[in-house]
Amino acid sequence: MYDVVTLGETMLRLAPPNFERLEQARTFDVTAGGSESSTAVGIARLGLKAAWVSKLPDNPLGRFIVNKIREHGVDTLHVVWTKDGRVGVYFLEFGSSPRSSQVIYDRKGSAISTLTADEIDWKPILKGARLFHTSGITPALSKSCAEATIKAVSEAKAAGCKVSFDLNYRSKLWSAAEAKACFSEVRKQVNTMNTTIEDTWQVFGMSGTHEEIAGKLKDTFPVDVVAITIRDPRTVRTATWTSIAVEANRLYKGKVYELEIVDRVGSGDSFTAGFLYGYLTGNVEKGIAYGDAMAALKHTFPGDITWVTEGDVLDQIKGQDARIRR
Amino acid sequence: MYDVVTLGETMLRLAPPNFERLEQARTFDVTAGGSESSTAVGIARLGLKAAWVSKLPDNPLGRFIVNKIREHGVDTLHVVWTKDGRVGVYFLEFGSSPRSSQVIYDRKGSAISTLTADEIDWKPILKGARLFHTSGITPALSKSCAEATIKAVSEAKAAGCKVSFDLNYRSKLWSAAEAKACFSEVRKQVNTMNTTIEDTWQVFGMSGTHEEIAGKLKDTFPVDVVAITIRDPRTVRTATWTSIAVEANRLYKGKVYELEIVDRVGSGDSFTAGFLYGYLTGNVEKGIAYGDAMAALKHTFPGDITWVTEGDVLDQIKGQDARIRR
Amino acid sequence: MYDVVTLGETMLRLAPPNFERLEQARTFDVTAGGSESSTAVGIARLGLKAAWVSKLPDNPLGRFIVNKIREHGVDTLHVVWTKDGRVGVYFLEFGSSPRSSQVIYDRKGSAISTLTADEIDWKPILKGARLFHTSGITPALSKSCAEATIKAVSEAKAAGCKVSFDLNYRSKLWSAAEAKACFSEVRKQVNTMNTTIEDTWQVFGMSGTHEEIAGKLKDTFPVDVVAITIRDPRTVRTATWTSIAVEANRLYKGKVYELEIVDRVGSGDSFTAGFLYGYLTGNVEKGIAYGDAMAALKHTFPGDITWVTEGDVLDQIKGQDARIRR
Amino acid sequence: MYDVVTLGETMLRLAPPNFERLEQARTFDVTAGGSESSTAVGIARLGLKAAWVSKLPDNPLGRFIVNKIREHGVDTLHVVWTKDGRVGVYFLEFGSSPRSSQVIYDRKGSAISTLTADEIDWKPILKGARLFHTSGITPALSKSCAEATIKAVSEAKAAGCKVSFDLNYRSKLWSAAEAKACFSEVRKQVNTMNTTIEDTWQVFGMSGTHEEIAGKLKDTFPVDVVAITIRDPRTVRTATWTSIAVEANRLYKGKVYELEIVDRVGSGDSFTAGFLYGYLTGNVEKGIAYGDAMAALKHTFPGDITWVTEGDVLDQIKGQDARIRR
Amino acid sequence: MYDVVTLGETMLRLAPPNFERLEQARTFDVTAGGSESSTAVGIARLGLKAAWVSKLPDNPLGRFIVNKIREHGVDTLHVVWTKDGRVGVYFLEFGSSPRSSQVIYDRKGSAISTLTADEIDWKPILKGARLFHTSGITPALSKSCAEATIKAVSEAKAAGCKVSFDLNYRSKLWSAAEAKACFSEVRKQVNTMNTTIEDTWQVFGMSGTHEEIAGKLKDTFPVDVVAITIRDPRTVRTATWTSIAVEANRLYKGKVYELEIVDRVGSGDSFTAGFLYGYLTGNVEKGIAYGDAMAALKHTFPGDITWVTEGDVLDQIKGQDARIRR
Amino acid sequence: MYDVVTLGETMLRLAPPNFERLEQARTFDVTAGGSESSTAVGIARLGLKAAWVSKLPDNPLGRFIVNKIREHGVDTLHVVWTKDGRVGVYFLEFGSSPRSSQVIYDRKGSAISTLTADEIDWKPILKGARLFHTSGITPALSKSCAEATIKAVSEAKAAGCKVSFDLNYRSKLWSAAEAKACFSEVRKQVNTMNTTIEDTWQVFGMSGTHEEIAGKLKDTFPVDVVAITIRDPRTVRTATWTSIAVEANRLYKGKVYELEIVDRVGSGDSFTAGFLYGYLTGNVEKGIAYGDAMAALKHTFPGDITWVTEGDVLDQIKGQDARIRR
Repeated sequence: MYDVVTLGETMLRLAPPNFERLEQARTFDVTAGGSESSTAVGIARLGLKAAWVSKLPDNPLGRFIVNKIREHGVDTLHVVWTKDGRVGVYFLEFGSSPRSSQVIYDRKGSAISTLTADEIDWKPILKGARLFHTSGITPALSKSCAEATIKAVSEAKAAGCKVSFDLNYRSKLWSAAEAKACFSEVRKQVNTMNTTIEDTWQVFGMSGTHEEIAGKLKDTFPVDVVAITIRDPRTVRTATWTSIAVEANRLYKGKVYELEIVDRVGSGDSFTAGFLYGYLTGNVEKGIAYGDAMAALKHTFPGDITWVTEGDVLDQIKGQDARIRR
Repeated sequence: MYDVVTLGETMLRLAPPNFERLEQARTFDVTAGGSESSTAVGIARLGLKAAWVSKLPDNPLGRFIVNKIREHGVDTLHVVWTKDGRVGVYFLEFGSSPRSSQVIYDRKGSAISTLTADEIDWKPILKGARLFHTSGITPALSKSCAEATIKAVSEAKAAGCKVSFDLNYRSKLWSAAEAKACFSEVRKQVNTMNTTIEDTWQVFGMSGTHEEIAGKLKDTFPVDVVAITIRDPRTVRTATWTSIAVEANRLYKGKVYELEIVDRVGSGDSFTAGFLYGYLTGNVEKGIAYGDAMAALKHTFPGDITWVTEGDVLDQIKGQDARIRR
Repeated sequence: MYDVVTLGETMLRLAPPNFERLEQARTFDVTAGGSESSTAVGIARLGLKAAWVSKLPDNPLGRFIVNKIREHGVDTLHVVWTKDGRVGVYFLEFGSSPRSSQVIYDRKGSAISTLTADEIDWKPILKGARLFHTSGITPALSKSCAEATIKAVSEAKAAGCKVSFDLNYRSKLWSAAEAKACFSEVRKQVNTMNTTIEDTWQVFGMSGTHEEIAGKLKDTFPVDVVAITIRDPRTVRTATWTSIAVEANRLYKGKVYELEIVDRVGSGDSFTAGFLYGYLTGNVEKGIAYGDAMAALKHTFPGDITWVTEGDVLDQIKGQDARIRR
Repeated sequence: MYDVVTLGETMLRLAPPNFERLEQARTFDVTAGGSESSTAVGIARLGLKAAWVSKLPDNPLGRFIVNKIREHGVDTLHVVWTKDGRVGVYFLEFGSSPRSSQVIYDRKGSAISTLTADEIDWKPILKGARLFHTSGITPALSKSCAEATIKAVSEAKAAGCKVSFDLNYRSKLWSAAEAKACFSEVRKQVNTMNTTIEDTWQVFGMSGTHEEIAGKLKDTFPVDVVAITIRDPRTVRTATWTSIAVEANRLYKGKVYELEIVDRVGSGDSFTAGFLYGYLTGNVEKGIAYGDAMAALKHTFPGDITWVTEGDVLDQIKGQDARIRR
Repeated sequence: MYDVVTLGETMLRLAPPNFERLEQARTFDVTAGGSESSTAVGIARLGLKAAWVSKLPDNPLGRFIVNKIREHGVDTLHVVWTKDGRVGVYFLEFGSSPRSSQVIYDRKGSAISTLTADEIDWKPILKGARLFHTSGITPALSKSCAEATIKAVSEAKAAGCKVSFDLNYRSKLWSAAEAKACFSEVRKQVNTMNTTIEDTWQVFGMSGTHEEIAGKLKDTFPVDVVAITIRDPRTVRTATWTSIAVEANRLYKGKVYELEIVDRVGSGDSFTAGFLYGYLTGNVEKGIAYGDAMAALKHTFPGDITWVTEGDVLDQIKGQDARIRR
Repeated sequence: MYDVVTLGETMLRLAPPNFERLEQARTFDVTAGGSESSTAVGIARLGLKAAWVSKLPDNPLGRFIVNKIREHGVDTLHVVWTKDGRVGVYFLEFGSSPRSSQVIYDRKGSAISTLTADEIDWKPILKGARLFHTSGITPALSKSCAEATIKAVSEAKAAGCKVSFDLNYRSKLWSAAEAKACFSEVRKQVNTMNTTIEDTWQVFGMSGTHEEIAGKLKDTFPVDVVAITIRDPRTVRTATWTSIAVEANRLYKGKVYELEIVDRVGSGDSFTAGFLYGYLTGNVEKGIAYGDAMAALKHTFPGDITWVTEGDVLDQIKGQDARIRR
């Protein structure tokens, strides 16, 4: 019986070290990266029981992905193994001002893009679960993935789970119109939604302050909570991070973190992990406190995956000075 | 004006160091690997003017591939750049007895698989060229690639080039029947053909000693020269290498090299480079002498590409002892 | 409900690369290494449900250890976390003839050495389990560890599990007399025992051929099966591997593998994993077939942990040639 | 037929990673670095046809240098190969405030220092070329290099090429008086000149604002265009970059870039490449726009060589925010 | 005959690269780190004759430690070698805002913790020496170490050496009360004392401005000189550094350095080295000038040990701009 | 007062890892390598007091060299520091059959080549020393080096030291005739001489069995002992090693070691170290026993320098099996 179940793709992430451009790479650092598995990892590391569901080819690369998720205690027993398809790959180039970081996706034909709505028996997985989470990437992967996502959300709702949805718009995968249409379909099932103003602008054409957008989202969709994460880049390697959330007309504001960025990929998913953990074990206020601390910490070490403990989170919430801890 | 023109795919090669299994990789060494480009590189390094033709996506990974070929002086001006498709990838795991080395191909949907027969204007490329070379991998990539290969071979013949063909059967790409059918189509245009007894067994069902197979191939197909490369593995990390060739009923036998293998991938293509160079600048005897030396040396350093000079080849032909050269 | 439960210490393993001596190290490769966890990993990778029980300090190094075990699907929920003690460390120097490899242990004061007989509630862990496994290292760690081991073996027996014991004598930890005394205490509970002739000579003073020793062990102790692993080193970096087993007066002989050694540490534990898997899912014959293949493969990649699948094992049992697999 | 031809030395660049001091190095990153070849690479990457002329020893290190230049499509056919002399080496130590970066040159006796005025047949190389470029380093290498440089400049002028000259004063190679004398000799042939105020102060004793110095240079020497690059260091690892240029009494000012420096070496040569490309395909305004973007980008990845495309340049000119590009 | 003799522990320092967290380490960079040996190295590098005294196990790790100290010309002949005990280890995780750096000590049971007051014959070592230095870490290691420290200080005094003491309070090793008691015992022998306001607050409960605390210390203890080092962290990776000193009621203030931190560990010990060198070869003013420059430089390269020359120090004192030095 | 004093050049050694060819290098492993300093290191590690004399430029690379020698306890106080000249460099490419290893020297203009006979005041250095050692490389570096070598040998003799000379013929540095002439000059002062049959053939034209050559050398030159080292390469990466020595008409034969070669450079110098240590502390028999063990071990780890202890040597002499030592 899991506290949280997530669904989504995880890819092989290949990144040259030391700010090398992709074209000058001599080696790649090899890790696993995927929005929903990163969220599951964060939740498991904070102490809840999490499962991640996906579809992978039965080869060393597929096993690599699963290993890197279950290494953190996430249950991967419900991953569907297949002889077909490939492991999606993404190439990550780290930038430095004025050159921004860059991702090249090579995910076409990945095993999960062949996932069908009937392929996963959700009942035993979701039985007793408190929350199901996925993001806008999953339905964007293929038509059958969109169907499988809608099915999963419905089953979650039916099983009595809360549903969390990260808008996560990827313009390389589908159009804003498609994203909007899909979200319109799932929105009634969604309890907590998180996003950025960049994504809400692109998908819904909403503009305004963060607070206004949170309000509009809350008004437009019948969700319980809307959280908006706010990364304000100063340079490519420095930024501030915070978030706001709206629940029942009440606005919550997170703490602002000053960041010296080592690797920002996965910070949104770390926020989601912290937010959902805080929300499930407390309330929205605890959610954004944990979410912001998780996201801020994620910027400070390499990889998508969030190597953070609850102790680290509490240190940040309390306020940690810049001195060495001995 | 080129001496030799080759056509084929080159992939990103990703290999974990230190005999790590793919599943335990933390970094990949990143190089470029492709049969026909490796052959072009070998020929260019020995001193002839070589061009390599292919199709690649216009992104950092496509440029990476081209860079690693032209680094050796091979002309890449005729590579077709495209917005579509991806760079093929192959993952290489180095073995040690009793575990053999292993390759996982991830080349589906590569840019070159969309190559069509009309896409390359061969006349200016082949004008004045002495030899055109490709391998059985190129037509196996897709139906349109098969057509493009047949077209290229015909144009080469028409332009007065010799045609070289490496059978290079890849069972993951097509069936033996398909390979046989394709080869039957090109065989009349082919002047020099090289292969292994493993491949002739799989594609043509021919068996017997190396000499018998060379003879059968020579009898079956109207080619001028048949060369057979012979790697006799003792363990995963040691082997012997030699070759034989038949021309006009005369049999040539190469020198036998004892190998301490560092990386055997690309050794067949190095043989082809040495063989074609020797054949074009001398005769079949010089061809297998150069081919064997090139292939033997290729086993001793990492990567598909053959970092060898003519001086190195002559040292091997003369016989180099195991002492350090100062 | 687990198929197999194991108990023992896992350490941080620190090894300089490229045959550097410890004294000249500039970097260490960091992995986790421990006899019983390696066995659990091997069993889990072959498809049974395995749990590993231990005691670790609640810090990043303790979490590192657990991560590297559960990465392979082994359940680590029953590891005891403590504020006291440290993670044991071992330093490994790779040799090359005529210099043999060398291990320096720095395990004194490790968290597990404070384990007491009452600290683990075995009943829920062992409920329904088919086999409990530990080795002679665990009782050697401290007096309280010896008591905890004896307790665990008794509880396993009481719970209806088979008990497996790897003699694994470590002269740095205790004397042969102490080892013998401890083994005398547990022997009645043990169903399958594995060891080497080096260890039986040191602990029991038994000499003779492998077959004779297996017989003597079988006669002396009331165990069902005795397996003896036989590594015959030719040089520091080459060896042969095989094993024999005796069950009910029947002698089984394994296949002899020729090894090009990359890293021999953990091969005995891989044997045990393969043997126990084969034995539990078949019989002693299958056990040594699987055990020998697992052990032979373990020599060919870095780290204590066995990155092997059942497919790899079957390839070895069938006989894999030294050619590259594409 | 080349658009641009450059002449100069390229050295082996050896740099310890991770801000290690040279004295504590355990490994060196190995790349090639030279002012005029970097400029040729930048121009070739932007799409013009470039050749680089030099003199190198015929050994693996000489080949290494040529490989790293032709990897980017620069023609190296006119490099003079010799049995004598060595490859120049420079050691680079990366600084961090308050420790500045440091270069140790070990270039004495390099093959190019033996270059004589008669050794290169410039007519076929320069035939049809639009521009010839060299820097103040080339004549400083030796007396015969100074003669060869003057000869090359004259031949370029005679062949109808524009001539570009980067003052590039190196006080370790010659005195300011020698540099001034040499420049006085070539100045009549030079069309575009670029430099810094540090160099103009040292060589010509000119002081004043950047604009005043550009004016003085323009007045003193009969060149068409003077460009001055302006790096304003804030700390060792941050700076701003911009440039100004004067042509026919019109002053052009470049955009100011904020830099998070990864590796600043070669940024001046990248500016020159961008400037010459923009100037040849447009005008001075385009020149400094391209030059500044190229230079700013060069600070953000390792190595002297500029791994930049025209798309990257246009992104910078347009203004790229600090967010990740997906 | 030595100018300076120091006494203390040096540990193996293990640190993952690239801001990896300890839990995600794949390799550790291996260096040696210890307060008093770093001070001895700094003094030796500046040109005085220094010896470092300690106790180490006679194994490759003990030799590693000694090698890394004598590599800089420090005499290690008086190190006590033992069969017992281990080399202390510390694990260092580099932080980035908002995550601070972290040290995990694993030094219990180290060889030096068994050091007794009688084990070292100080007379021949200290004969003719000008200064003896140790820090508050040494007496904190064990009861016998405290006795050995007090003995050493007394013998130094008796031998006519000045005594230098760095308060260096480590709360993991002993309580503030214990530290205070020990310091009260040695204070009469101490000539120069250096510390931070953090440590004086923790150990003596003193608060106030830096100047006030320096005064209070000076008044409370009969020492000749008190130096206080002041690191003002802005972020985890940037800070300012300076120091003040009081001698005979005169206050000296050091220069303020802006730091881009690569590795701050060992900077206090570098200060001490520079301070003692400057003090012994000049006066307190020279002491803090050298001390601050040494400390500022130490932040800019990896490792505890200070790879600095007197030329580097003079460059900083003079003021070095951020441009590259060629 | 030293037991042994050596004189010679030490270079920066740059070697690509993993059997990469120099031309394909991406990084170099950086170590120090020089015949006479390696010998001094070996002797110091075995327990005698050794000093190494040389001349180096006063820069980070010169300090690097000295650091790597004194790291092992060798005294480097008598190294002459200069503002002129450079650190010699050698590039090492590791081979694998059939490609042999290769060294490219870049040592011209090194600081030591400017050494003059008057530059070193030998009296205080050699006072009380038991043995002075140099090799045929030192006089070959320059005319003034030849004079300085002859002077040093004479002073050693005058000071009552034994003199040891390793013929070490380097054909890149001088002709066989020059080497022979120089050796004729020093031979009367030489007590122990060691060499190989390759060198005696090249320099003196002597042929025959090892024993015959040893005899001829002994007869021709008035030396006390002649030692001949015998490396019999089987492949590039395997060989056997042994030695013979003749003293007063008695022939001594060393043990034959089977080698799995990691890095053979410096093994001759390790032999010399072991031989001289054994000879000085015992006799010729002990000398070749220690020399062979030292040389055999040197083949098994990277670098010129011999990271061996007397314990390791005794293990080899006793005979160490290929099992792991725990």
